[in-house]
Amino acid sequence: MQQTVNIIKVGGNIIDNESKLTTFLTDFAQLKGLKVLIHGGGKVATEISKGLGIEAKMVDGRRITDTETLKIVTMVYAGLINKNLVAKLQSKGCNAIGLTGADANIIPAHKRPVKEIDYGFVGDVEEEKMDGVVLSALLKSGLSPILAPLTHDQQGNMLNTNADTIASTVAVSLSKHFNVNLIYCFEKDGVLDAEEKVIQEISKPYFAELKEKGVVIAGMIPKLDNAFAAIDKGVSSVYIMHADGLPTLINDSKNTGTKIS
Amino acid sequence: MQQTVNIIKVGGNIIDNESKLTTFLTDFAQLKGLKVLIHGGGKVATEISKGLGIEAKMVDGRRITDTETLKIVTMVYAGLINKNLVAKLQSKGCNAIGLTGADANIIPAHKRPVKEIDYGFVGDVEEEKMDGVVLSALLKSGLSPILAPLTHDQQGNMLNTNADTIASTVAVSLSKHFNVNLIYCFEKDGVLDAEEKVIQEISKPYFAELKEKGVVIAGMIPKLDNAFAAIDKGVSSVYIMHADGLPTLINDSKNTGTKIS
Repeated sequence: MQQTVNIIKVGGNIIDNESKLTTFLTDFAQLKGLKVLIHGGGKVATEISKGLGIEAKMVDGRRITDTETLKIVTMVYAGLINKNLVAKLQSKGCNAIGLTGADANIIPAHKRPVKEIDYGFVGDVEEEKMDGVVLSALLKSGLSPILAPLTHDQQGNMLNTNADTIASTVAVSLSKHFNVNLIYCFEKDGVLDAEEKVIQEISKPYFAELKEKGVVIAGMIPKLDNAFAAIDKGVSSVYIMHADGLPTLINDSKNTGTKIS
Repeated sequence: MQQTVNIIKVGGNIIDNESKLTTFLTDFAQLKGLKVLIHGGGKVATEISKGLGIEAKMVDGRRITDTETLKIVTMVYAGLINKNLVAKLQSKGCNAIGLTGADANIIPAHKRPVKEIDYGFVGDVEEEKMDGVVLSALLKSGLSPILAPLTHDQQGNMLNTNADTIASTVAVSLSKHFNVNLIYCFEKDGVLDAEEKVIQEISKPYFAELKEKGVVIAGMIPKLDNAFAAIDKGVSSVYIMHADGLPTLINDSKNTGTKIS
C-alpha cells in the first residue's frame, strides 16, 4: 500500500498572527505521518516595502511584482518567514527543511506572459515538468519540506508565485509516489452553505448544483475548481477547513471541514 | 575509494560584485564532482538596514546582532542572496539547493554566551552534534548545497553565524563520509610571503616558523589556525586562494593558491 502524504497550505492570516501561528506549528509538528507545508506571504512584505519607501504597484486592482518588489518577497518569503517557520518547527521536534521552487528545481516555472496586464516577476508553474522525485526522497528520509510561495524562471530569476497553485501542483506531482491529501487551511470551518453551515462533502455534480443555485460564494469557486482539477490529476482528497481541525483530521482520522472528492 | 567533495567558501567581495559573481557562478556550475558552496553576507544587509533606518549596533568595534538585525540578516542571507545564487546556478545547469543550518538541522548551534560582550543572536556551532548525514545524502543524489551563514539555537530562533566557521564545521562533518577539500576563496592569490609571492604549501612546522618570523599577516592567522584544526579533524586539504583558480584546481587537478596540509 502507498504511504500517505498530507500537504497543508496555510495563508497569511495565520502567518501574521503570533498566537495562531504558535498553535498551528505545535499542531503541525505533532501531525502523524509524512507532511509538507506551503505557506503564504502575510503582511510582512507590505510592511517592509513601506519601511523601504517602495510603493505597492497595482494595475486594475492587481498587485504587480516589479524588480524591487521581487527583492522584497524573496527576502521575506524565503528568508524571514520560511526560516523562522523552520527554526520554530525544529524546536518542536519536526525535522523541517525550508525550500522554494528554485531549490533542487522542485517547481520549474516561467514568467507569466504579458497579455492585458504585465504582472512582472510572477511565476506560472510548469506542472508537466514536475516529477516529485526530490520531494519524495526528502519525505522518505524523514524530513518535512516547508515551501515558500516562490519559483524560478530557469534563467536565473526568482518569481513570486501563488501559494495555492504551489500547493496543488506539488500535490499532483507527489501523487505519482504517494497517496496524497491536499488540505487548504483558512479562517472558516469549511465551505459554507446558505445557512452558514459547513458542507461536509462536495462531489463534482453537487458542486455544479451549488454553483447553479449561487450557494457557493464567488471567492471560493476558483479554490474548488483547483481542488477538482487536482483530484482529476491523481490527488486522493482535498480538504478546505480551519487549521484548528488538523489534529482531528490527521491524527484521529475523523473528517472535519469540507471534503472534496 | 571514497568520493571527493569540494567545499568552497566565497566572501562578500564576490557576492557584492555582479561581474565577479557571474564569473564565479559560471565556474562553480562547471566544477567537476560533488561540491558545496558557503557564502558570506556582503554589503546588502547593511544597505537594507540603512534603508529601514536600523543602525548597525557596535560594541568595542564588534557588530552586535540585535532582534532587528537578526531579521535583516535572515531576510538577506537566507532569502535574497541565497535564493538568487540558487536561481542563477540552476540556470547554469547546477542542481543547487539553498539551505541554512536550521534546515534539516544540518548545523545545530547555540546563542553565544554573554561574557565581556553580548553579541546578541550570534551562533556558536555545536560541531560535535553534526553527523553530515543529510548533506551527504543530498550530495549523493546529485544536488549541490548552497549554505547561508545562519544557524539556529534549537529553541526556535535563527542565529547569525560566521561563514568561515560554517565552512570548516561542514567540511569536518562531511569528512566522515567523503574525502574532503576545503577551499577558502578570497581576493588574493593565496597566503603571501614577505616578497608578496604566494606560498604554495604550508605545513604545521612551516606555519610555526612563518608566525615566528612574522611573515604571515595577522588577519590570516585565525584562518590558518582553523585550517589546521580542520585537517586534524579529518579534512584532507585546505586551500586559501583566488576564486579564479577554482577550475584549475578542481577540473585540471593542478595546485594553485596556498595548500595547507
